[in-house]
Order: sequence, then structure tokens, then C-alpha cells
Amino acid sequence: MECGILHSSYLDMTPYAECFAAQQNELKVFLSHEVHDPLSITFALLWFPEDDFFERYPNIKVVASVAAGVDSILACPSLPEHVKVCRNRDDQQAAIMSTFAIWHVLNHQRNFPLYREQQANKVWQRQPMRAPSEVSVGVLGMGFMGERIAKDLDHLGFSVAGWRKTNKPLKDSNISVFCGSEELSAFLSRTEVLICVLPLTDETHGILNLQTFQQLKPNAYLVHLGRGGHLVESDLMHALQTGVLKGASLDVFAQEPLPSTSPLWEHPDLIITPHDASDVRPSAAVKNLIDEYLRYLDGQCLQNEVPRSTGY
Amino acid sequence: MECGILHSSYLDMTPYAECFAAQQNELKVFLSHEVHDPLSITFALLWFPEDDFFERYPNIKVVASVAAGVDSILACPSLPEHVKVCRNRDDQQAAIMSTFAIWHVLNHQRNFPLYREQQANKVWQRQPMRAPSEVSVGVLGMGFMGERIAKDLDHLGFSVAGWRKTNKPLKDSNISVFCGSEELSAFLSRTEVLICVLPLTDETHGILNLQTFQQLKPNAYLVHLGRGGHLVESDLMHALQTGVLKGASLDVFAQEPLPSTSPLWEHPDLIITPHDASDVRPSAAVKNLIDEYLRYLDGQCLQNEVPRSTGY
Repeated sequence: MECGILHSSYLDMTPYAECFAAQQNELKVFLSHEVHDPLSITFALLWFPEDDFFERYPNIKVVASVAAGVDSILACPSLPEHVKVCRNRDDQQAAIMSTFAIWHVLNHQRNFPLYREQQANKVWQRQPMRAPSEVSVGVLGMGFMGERIAKDLDHLGFSVAGWRKTNKPLKDSNISVFCGSEELSAFLSRTEVLICVLPLTDETHGILNLQTFQQLKPNAYLVHLGRGGHLVESDLMHALQTGVLKGASLDVFAQEPLPSTSPLWEHPDLIITPHDASDVRPSAAVKNLIDEYLRYLDGQCLQNEVPRSTGY
Repeated sequence: MECGILHSSYLDMTPYAECFAAQQNELKVFLSHEVHDPLSITFALLWFPEDDFFERYPNIKVVASVAAGVDSILACPSLPEHVKVCRNRDDQQAAIMSTFAIWHVLNHQRNFPLYREQQANKVWQRQPMRAPSEVSVGVLGMGFMGERIAKDLDHLGFSVAGWRKTNKPLKDSNISVFCGSEELSAFLSRTEVLICVLPLTDETHGILNLQTFQQLKPNAYLVHLGRGGHLVESDLMHALQTGVLKGASLDVFAQEPLPSTSPLWEHPDLIITPHDASDVRPSAAVKNLIDEYLRYLDGQCLQNEVPRSTGY
């Protein structure tokens, strides 16, 4: 019987084991403390494995991330070249992510923080309002999540563009797609609300910097749902102080949990959430792993394998 | 030359006059204080006319409301039977209304007030999250605005139903439509988030009452964007106190502006906005009036006339 492991350096994987048990299949999985024979383990569901994880399990052939991002697996120093690394794709998770992003866009479009302030002061004062078509949103990272967010915002009437590394046309939509570093400036200069859902790679590390913010339209707002490593925090603070950015919503941070000493918590123009834009649904992650490993055993191409060359 | 008037008992109609001037047409309009010959006035753009308005302008044939609702015109005691009353339909306004409603639904779905409270206390605590498909939204009033809201929420993945007085199938959608008083209970019992965009009529007056709230699903939330007369305020307060409703967003009130003495302002589970869900765009309202009156002169059917029998 084929055996796998459900493992994270800090996440409780028990719910995943329960989902595994609930699904009829020919495979067997263990939680870390249940493994008696590490050499029998040939597949794994992972989230932030320890540096030496793959030394302990040398016969692993296929691993899947519990989440859309696989950066915590690719960053593992012991990951062998031949191991196939798969991401998780889950339509429901994308819907959760998209509605989270949309709340922040609408919060900016209609200035709901001002309404809340007015209510606190019992002030009845109507405010100028803009139609969605008058607000330009740019999605940095047009992968599985980014496309969903862009299409949903387009459907609501926003003026939407996307940016991605490589060219790939977007069917049946009004969304302009900008490609590569040479089109980044054009993308930024038409964007008021910038949503970051990029994968973290060497090329995207630090991409949310002052130079980026300065190219945005007036009244610019950042919705950061990518990874902490994308954002140059000191540049963000400077951009807020100088009015380059009107505000920002941050869901991811260089250090998580965000330390209570961080000045970000108290900044009046920041909305802080605890890396909660979307969550993995264990049942979907487990199904993805099972499907991918069965494809591997069957000699088929994997559906959600992440090429090492791009990392996403 | 055909002459009209732009009039409201309290709204400054100057922006409408400017829009009128900017549009090429054969008609002439006056603001109230500019009218020298009331008998020459044959059409009007109105918002809350005074009780004796139509006695002063006895030759008016067609009036249009600046907004979607025509209740302030139909309620005018001097309105003659033969005057054609038209509503305003504006896609951009519907998009503004819909995104406003969606913010409140998402605010409830993802419990953003709790995140803001956590931020104020520097608490990093992830929260349970629900996919849109796990949240059932019901739209009371499936007219021009209601259909737009329902379709947008359906597109985002919510479980959406609508309720309307008379049967009219909704094409190309997953949205269940319930009809008439006999199906109201079935509609309410499958609804968690209730959005009211009903017109105000004798039949809908007071429809947002305790009996209505008690039929909703657990964790029920009200988004009220209709008219103040729909809501029994004391029933709302009772429903909040007893947990029948988790909270409510109120944009319309029995008395507007909401008096500073109202207990609604300070209720922690209420979000109060100043009748600002959407606003008329003067250019669209003026174009609607011109188009309707030219159709009238041409002997054509009006496109947005409101039947007196229904009032919407």
C-alpha cells in the first residue's frame, strides 16, 4: 500500500487526516508522530516543512501544498530536484479570496471608513460617490486567484487590468493584461487600487516599493494579499506619510503573527488582517493530493505541478 | 417651444439645469424661481414636490422622478390622474447601488467588524471563514435595482433568491424567485442576509417587522436600502436585543436626516449611512426626462412610466 504523510512545522494537520479518512481511496496517510517507517513514505501534503524534511523522507515522489502558494516547499533546502511539487487549486477558495479582495476595493470606492466615523459622531452627511467604472483596479499576479478577482471586479463594473510575467490572453473579458517588466509602468500608471496576489519569487521580492507606489494614480490604495516579502514596509510608511498612497489593506507580513510592537497596527490608514484572505479547505487540499498522486502512479501528467523554473 | 420645470421642495436643482443646457434638444426648462408663465409648463423633473405643486402647473402632462422611486410624486395630493409619472432607470446608478449592497453582504460574510476590533487591540487571530456559497442572500424587491444586486451576488457565488409581488421569470440565472405573500415565508426561511430594495406601497409599508425577522435563518442580517416606511423600528431594536437579528445596515429612515437623538446611531450592531446607497446622476435623470417627453410628443409609449395601480 502506498503511504504518505501530512506535515507542517506548525500547523495542526489533524483536520486533514480526518478528511483523508473520509475519502474512499487506496492510499494511507500518517501524521508526523505516527510514522514508523519513514522510508515507506512516498507522497506528502505539506505546509512550511522544516529544512531537513526531505532528508528524513528520502522516498517521497510527489508533494502538494495545502495552499495555492508553494513557496514554503520550494524554499526547503532539502527538497530534491526530482520531487514533483504541486499547488492546490480550489474554486471555493478562490471565491473566498475574491470576495475578501472585493470588500477592500468597495471599502475604498465608497469610503466606508468615513461613514463609520460619521456614525460615531452622529453626523448625517451625504458623500460624493463614484460608479465602479470610475475606479481603476489593477491586479498584480494573474494566476488562478488573480484571474478570479479580476473577472469578478470586471463583472461588477470596475475598470480592471491585470499584470503577469508572461503573456497569456484572457478570454471573454474586458480586462487588459499587461506583461513583463517592460509593461509594468503602463499598468501602474492606469491603476488606482492595486491588488497584489503575486507568488513570491526572486523577481517579485520587494516589488511593492516606493517607485511602484509613485507610478499609481492619485488616491491610490494598496490591497496586499500576496506574501510579506513583496512589500518594502518602510516605503509603504513613507508613501502613506507623503500622500503617495491614501491607504492600504495588509493581510500578509514579513513576520507573522505581526508583532504587537509593529507600528502598522495603529496606523489610521491601514487595515490589518491576520493572513486570512482565504483559507485552505482541508477536504479540497486532500482531494487535490490524492488526485495528483494517483495520476503519478498511473503515469499521467500532473494537473497542478509547479515548474521549478518559475516557482508558481 | 415646449417648456418644463426642474423642481424639488428641498433639493438644489441647479446641477440638473446645467445638464439640461449641456444636452442638445428642442426643449426648454426653468428652475422654480425662473418660471414666469406657469401655464406654459408641460413637463417636469421632480423630487418631493409640495402638496399643491400640480395646482400651480395645471398643464403638466409628463413628470419624471430624479430617482428610481416615484413615491414622493405619487404621494402628492394635487397630482392629477392623467399626468404620466416616469421613474429613472440608470445602469450606472444600479451598479453604484449594487456595489454598496455587496459591501454590506461581504462585511457580514467575513465579519470585518471583528477584524477591525482585533486590529484596535493588536490581536492576531484568524477567524472561521465561509465561502459565498454558504451564505444565503434574499433580495426583497426584484425590480431594476434588486435584479442587479441579485445577479451580481449570484455571480460572486452567493446563494441568492429574490422575492417580488408578481411572477416574472429571471433568465440565465441560478436565482430562485419567490412571488407574492403566499411565498414570502418560504423566501424568508431560506435567507440569512435580507436586502430590502422594495418600493414603498401600502402593501410593503411595515414589511420589515418582527414576524419577518423571526422567519430568517440564524445569524440573520438586514441590509435596508428601501424606504424608512418599510421598517418597524421598535421591532428592529427588539430583534437585535433578542438575537433574532445579528445586526443591520440602515440607509433609509422614517425621519431623514436621522435625528441626533435617535438611539440607532449608537447601537453597536447597526451600520448607519445617510440615504447614500446610490445617487442620481443628474445627466442620466435629465436624459431620461427628455427622452420620455419626446416620446410623449411623438405619440409613442413611454419606456419608464409607472402604472398608478402598482406604484412602482
